[in-house]
Amino acid sequence: MTDRISRVCARLADAGIDALLVSNLVNVRWLTGFSGSNGWVVLAPDGVALVTDGRYGVQAERQLADAGVQADVLVGLSGGEVMELIGRRCANYARIGFESAHVTVASYQQYVEAMPGVALVPVIGVVESERRTKDPVEIDRIERACAIADRALADVVPLLGTGLTEAQVRNLLDQRMREFGADGPSYDTIVATGPVHAALPHHAPTHTLLEPGHTVIIDVGALVDGYHSDMTRSFVVGEPGARQLEMYELVLASQLAGLAAVRPGASTIDVDRACRRVISDAGVGDWFSHGTGHGVGLLIHEDPFLNRVTPGILQVGDVVTVEPGVYHEGFGGIRVEDLVVVTSDGCRVLTSSPKDSPCPQSPPTT
Amino acid sequence: MTDRISRVCARLADAGIDALLVSNLVNVRWLTGFSGSNGWVVLAPDGVALVTDGRYGVQAERQLADAGVQADVLVGLSGGEVMELIGRRCANYARIGFESAHVTVASYQQYVEAMPGVALVPVIGVVESERRTKDPVEIDRIERACAIADRALADVVPLLGTGLTEAQVRNLLDQRMREFGADGPSYDTIVATGPVHAALPHHAPTHTLLEPGHTVIIDVGALVDGYHSDMTRSFVVGEPGARQLEMYELVLASQLAGLAAVRPGASTIDVDRACRRVISDAGVGDWFSHGTGHGVGLLIHEDPFLNRVTPGILQVGDVVTVEPGVYHEGFGGIRVEDLVVVTSDGCRVLTSSPKDSPCPQSPPTT
Repeated sequence: MTDRISRVCARLADAGIDALLVSNLVNVRWLTGFSGSNGWVVLAPDGVALVTDGRYGVQAERQLADAGVQADVLVGLSGGEVMELIGRRCANYARIGFESAHVTVASYQQYVEAMPGVALVPVIGVVESERRTKDPVEIDRIERACAIADRALADVVPLLGTGLTEAQVRNLLDQRMREFGADGPSYDTIVATGPVHAALPHHAPTHTLLEPGHTVIIDVGALVDGYHSDMTRSFVVGEPGARQLEMYELVLASQLAGLAAVRPGASTIDVDRACRRVISDAGVGDWFSHGTGHGVGLLIHEDPFLNRVTPGILQVGDVVTVEPGVYHEGFGGIRVEDLVVVTSDGCRVLTSSPKDSPCPQSPPTT
Repeated sequence: MTDRISRVCARLADAGIDALLVSNLVNVRWLTGFSGSNGWVVLAPDGVALVTDGRYGVQAERQLADAGVQADVLVGLSGGEVMELIGRRCANYARIGFESAHVTVASYQQYVEAMPGVALVPVIGVVESERRTKDPVEIDRIERACAIADRALADVVPLLGTGLTEAQVRNLLDQRMREFGADGPSYDTIVATGPVHAALPHHAPTHTLLEPGHTVIIDVGALVDGYHSDMTRSFVVGEPGARQLEMYELVLASQLAGLAAVRPGASTIDVDRACRRVISDAGVGDWFSHGTGHGVGLLIHEDPFLNRVTPGILQVGDVVTVEPGVYHEGFGGIRVEDLVVVTSDGCRVLTSSPKDSPCPQSPPTT
């Protein structure tokens, strides 16, 4: 992790600051390995400090040692004392960057009071612009998370036609992921079925039965050592109808077009366009009501975002989802999502559940 | 929920504002029933608006109708459009309160740009000061959550001496809570055993075995319709030693002293003192390294907080934990925690798992 600290230090001069006060806990964890719920990093070329409270002193010392991070660990016994320690450390510098997209107006006021005479400079994305590029250790964790979700889904898919509810399918998936070594689900697992629920991209599972003839969207990922996976597969319970098959093929074609567009240097807006064009050309562009994808790492949603409006250029080491879908009340919904890592010549798909058919049980090969 | 909106509206004049821009999603949910991940409420005596993005338009209309909330639902198709809608709505008022403990410096800058000419007034706790008082519907959900966690723990306690790991016990608890109707665990379930792990108040479960002679802390709650429960029980695997029994009795006495101190009008600092005195008098005051409790509701940690330093007065309808503990590397740890609702004459305990003994299997009564 010392490499991560160096990479961020190298950006300070460009941001016009002498030191960076990191308050976003995800950034704190990425930089130091510290995973407590209360902590700040004061990061500068001449040294790094982690400030936390009494609950986390021992844990912080251990986690920083495990990560090989050289930093002063400063422990305050109350919120006021923590703020004093931060202020005293920051007083060594003339210009301190603070993470203005994470710091609240009330906290900013505390900073101002704790470090009189220091210029507080709002910065956005200094750590995130390095954090988006995953190193091999991070990719390994994400791949393990993907493999666990794949295995859980493979176990549960044969049960889809057996009278289970959305919530029961969700429970089985979460249970299997834990059994297979996940620290937990990566996010609230989505199981959405029928003409109404599956038409909502972010439906929370209920006690509704999975019924023959209905579409079902399963969006499932695992959490491993802080890293997330993300995958969606869609099915039709029982025998799919012609319209369902047609829409499934359409979404799959869109998703494959998106995957083919992912490569270093590609515009995120162009990847979105590649997916969206396939669905628009079929006359149902307004059924695809969300963006194409997002970065995944210590957060389930992080930079870069792939949609119609957020500019961005893909880089080697980005880990992103490609997840077009169609949703329409009365029809239900279909989404196909893989997680990929951008490589020098395109991308490598990290999720490997079958997606060639919406049938839970593929027809027996003869 | 119209009552909740009226209660908050009645506070606006005292806060010196004409309207309140609510951005904290927990407050948005509490006021309107809307549970999406993107939403703002503009709340004023002459009307309420909910602003959200395209993913949530349908859901917002439904959830507000279900909650009986009369409000305009305004849907933007991009982040920029959402901010424009907020700005246009707020332009009807001269002085708008914003939640300065939740709004980031970067978002505040967006507000300033979106509503020129409007005075943006930082306010803290306007909604929270009403949200802390739980109504019967909320207490019912919290009680259901408590009952589910009680039942899950009762199922799992007999298995503690049977060669399971911390993570396996956690998995079983989470699985049972789901089976018994929880939407999920209320927070990351804690199972901490042995002389090192149990000495950390917030240890995350590992693949460490529960071994005879070791203490084990189990901190488990359920989530029901957005509402949390919170409970801790501590055990000794196998036959407890004299020191373990002595410390267990001490923590239990401390916790009972805390419960006896909870009543309307009591100072939160005094409740903390009531717990802490019992442990300090036994000469191990520094083993009790955290506060005594916190409010619980739509958040697992919310107002009021019960500790040495945060002033506060308990009120009827507060739902709070009382959870003293002792932690020491080499010994392990013990914590006993109940969730209670403050009533006119004291408090009613909502969690009901047995706590009279640290033995997973109570000795058979003859």
